[in-house]
Amino acid sequence: MDVANLRINGNRLQQSLEEMAKIGATSRGGVTRLALSDEDKQARDLFVKWLKEIDCEITIDDMGSIFGTLPGSENNLPSVMSGSHIDSQPRGGRFDGILGVMGALEILRTIRENNIQINRPVTAVAWTNEEGTRFSPAMIASGVWAGSLKKDYAYNRTDPDGKRFEGELIRIGYKGPSPAKRWPVHAYYEYHIEQGPVLESKNRIIGVPKGIVNLNWYDIYIEGESNQAGPTPMVNRHDSLVAASEMIIAANEIPNKFGGDLVTTVGRIDNEPNSVNIIPGQTHFTFDIRSWNDGLTQRALDNLLPLFKDIADKRGCIVRIEETWRVKHSPFDPKLVRIVNDSAIKLGFDPLEMTSGAGHDAAYINQVAPTAMIFVPSIGGRSHVEIENTTWEDCKAGADVLLQCMLQSANEA
Amino acid sequence: MDVANLRINGNRLQQSLEEMAKIGATSRGGVTRLALSDEDKQARDLFVKWLKEIDCEITIDDMGSIFGTLPGSENNLPSVMSGSHIDSQPRGGRFDGILGVMGALEILRTIRENNIQINRPVTAVAWTNEEGTRFSPAMIASGVWAGSLKKDYAYNRTDPDGKRFEGELIRIGYKGPSPAKRWPVHAYYEYHIEQGPVLESKNRIIGVPKGIVNLNWYDIYIEGESNQAGPTPMVNRHDSLVAASEMIIAANEIPNKFGGDLVTTVGRIDNEPNSVNIIPGQTHFTFDIRSWNDGLTQRALDNLLPLFKDIADKRGCIVRIEETWRVKHSPFDPKLVRIVNDSAIKLGFDPLEMTSGAGHDAAYINQVAPTAMIFVPSIGGRSHVEIENTTWEDCKAGADVLLQCMLQSANEA
Repeated sequence: MDVANLRINGNRLQQSLEEMAKIGATSRGGVTRLALSDEDKQARDLFVKWLKEIDCEITIDDMGSIFGTLPGSENNLPSVMSGSHIDSQPRGGRFDGILGVMGALEILRTIRENNIQINRPVTAVAWTNEEGTRFSPAMIASGVWAGSLKKDYAYNRTDPDGKRFEGELIRIGYKGPSPAKRWPVHAYYEYHIEQGPVLESKNRIIGVPKGIVNLNWYDIYIEGESNQAGPTPMVNRHDSLVAASEMIIAANEIPNKFGGDLVTTVGRIDNEPNSVNIIPGQTHFTFDIRSWNDGLTQRALDNLLPLFKDIADKRGCIVRIEETWRVKHSPFDPKLVRIVNDSAIKLGFDPLEMTSGAGHDAAYINQVAPTAMIFVPSIGGRSHVEIENTTWEDCKAGADVLLQCMLQSANEA
Repeated sequence: MDVANLRINGNRLQQSLEEMAKIGATSRGGVTRLALSDEDKQARDLFVKWLKEIDCEITIDDMGSIFGTLPGSENNLPSVMSGSHIDSQPRGGRFDGILGVMGALEILRTIRENNIQINRPVTAVAWTNEEGTRFSPAMIASGVWAGSLKKDYAYNRTDPDGKRFEGELIRIGYKGPSPAKRWPVHAYYEYHIEQGPVLESKNRIIGVPKGIVNLNWYDIYIEGESNQAGPTPMVNRHDSLVAASEMIIAANEIPNKFGGDLVTTVGRIDNEPNSVNIIPGQTHFTFDIRSWNDGLTQRALDNLLPLFKDIADKRGCIVRIEETWRVKHSPFDPKLVRIVNDSAIKLGFDPLEMTSGAGHDAAYINQVAPTAMIFVPSIGGRSHVEIENTTWEDCKAGADVLLQCMLQSANEA
């Protein structure tokens, strides 16, 4: 058969996603499947069972990442890998991460049932703890695999209850025997929902990210003066929450001021003593700024951070600014990006060149192997919420593109 | 002896306050003595012990309020009462509340040791749960005593751990046999720290509040749309925290816009899901507005609350505004206010007419009996914090004024 005509089984992909969505299902149609939880273990067991059903060679590394490989005719050549993650946000969606794992599994199933001859081995992977919501930071296992994070550091991360990453990994039986360390990979494709509204708004089905935007996180700590609300005249106040509010407005106005593709977010705020009749004395918030353009980001930061100081000064508060994460924009492998684009066109789609605004395991793999991604639309642009959704047709479309990409890379010499 | 020359014992008052400050003492010089906690019980036991030492008749009502009375020669006449509260804020100060209880005790001790003949009985009182920080609302026991709050309502209030007020009252052994219900009171004086910076800034020692400002509390709930921070363009966002920040700025500008003695405070904010890389979808904050002028307050609210709606609309968010507390300004008894003022002048002070910006048990008692208050300076205007402080000299000064006021009222026919 001409592999250009080969298609994945959309019903089977849907059924697999529906099975997975039962594990950690929430009342409003989402899932809570935190990394290394009982639900994570249950979903891993199911993934491993499905890999076994198609006679994959299964490797579990000592960070808990699961690799299922089908052999190629030249089995000593570096493999073509695809996958994503099984863990979810608390009350997150049914597609984020798991679509990329089930997509890769579906490619292997399709290759197996059609007895397709491939030159190189192909591997489906599920990376541990991508979300970073239970154990910070995000993408911890792909980071260790790629050599960007230390394994000891990862093992000693604790969840909000103080439980160690390694302890939880052992508890669910997924500290595997193989060291989490990169091996040669010929090509890595990650299939994922867009998690934004761009594809939907432009009425496109396949998105082709040219790379991942930069990502910069800050912790802002403001110290004012706590006092009784009633008896303290306005002029005597050093209200840390009012200062924070002004900073949040300033942070929100930055993209409008500097243009381009900048996005800024204050996601978290903590206020002390947080009592109705006490003037706030200590406020902390996080600040997230991203763009494809590292220079633009820097100019925006050079404008905004001194503004934070001015606002604090004006209100008699002290501000401390800590940079907690800084990753430059990361362009994917141009050849693989072209393969994704061309495969989509051959399948009759009108692919959209874009950037990935979110981090993915692909960001770490991109540092050590040729990497590209495939996006499909998120309905209403919603993600990390229970109503996160993607049509089954679009799920199939992205997987068909992935199949063609993997076959092409796997048949390269 | 001429009682006009009678003075309280400043050292004894200081020692009593220092003893009390040991109960629930924090590492930074404050106290945590939450209502109906073990620390509250320990402090109550000490107060009762000291009342017994001067042969007071002790009554504990079924809201846990403690009354210690010295008889007058016409013991069937309504008594002259003074007191405040024993409970504190979490990591609160050593003077808020307890100064008024120890002050009243010191008056009784002074009368007893000097064998002063008084016409009417005099009573020192400690009201349960004034702060409202463990069991909302504030001033719950004086409210029940005055008939403004229902006892069943009070009994069923729960703390953040779900423990009932009545259960905790029984647990610490302070559900007394006497029904919490007002009896005739000839005059009620409450001695308290100012909890604001006005006396200090004007270099005065005695403040004479003409009454308590109005108090209005609102809960503001904003619903936006939660989404992944990176992939969501700014224009597609409905960020509830940005909307809240604009509202907080607007609320903070109201006193400047409307003038007078208005003060506004946003003390508490809660944000969901409060995660660094997720656009906030639900934000709640509290709004507190106070003034002596009820009409001015209403005009400010008529301006601000529609502004909240406009801000929410502009950002595609929904806002819900709930009024949770509304008390009109409450003028004290003019005759008692004059007695406080004249007593201070006779003692050589230059008393300052002012208002009380904070609520006090006096607010409820003022509804059923002639009431006035005496303020002494808070260093730096700080209160509800561990560094809350008042000099021992000022503590004595206020208690001397209180003594003269109580003697004058107690000797009235």
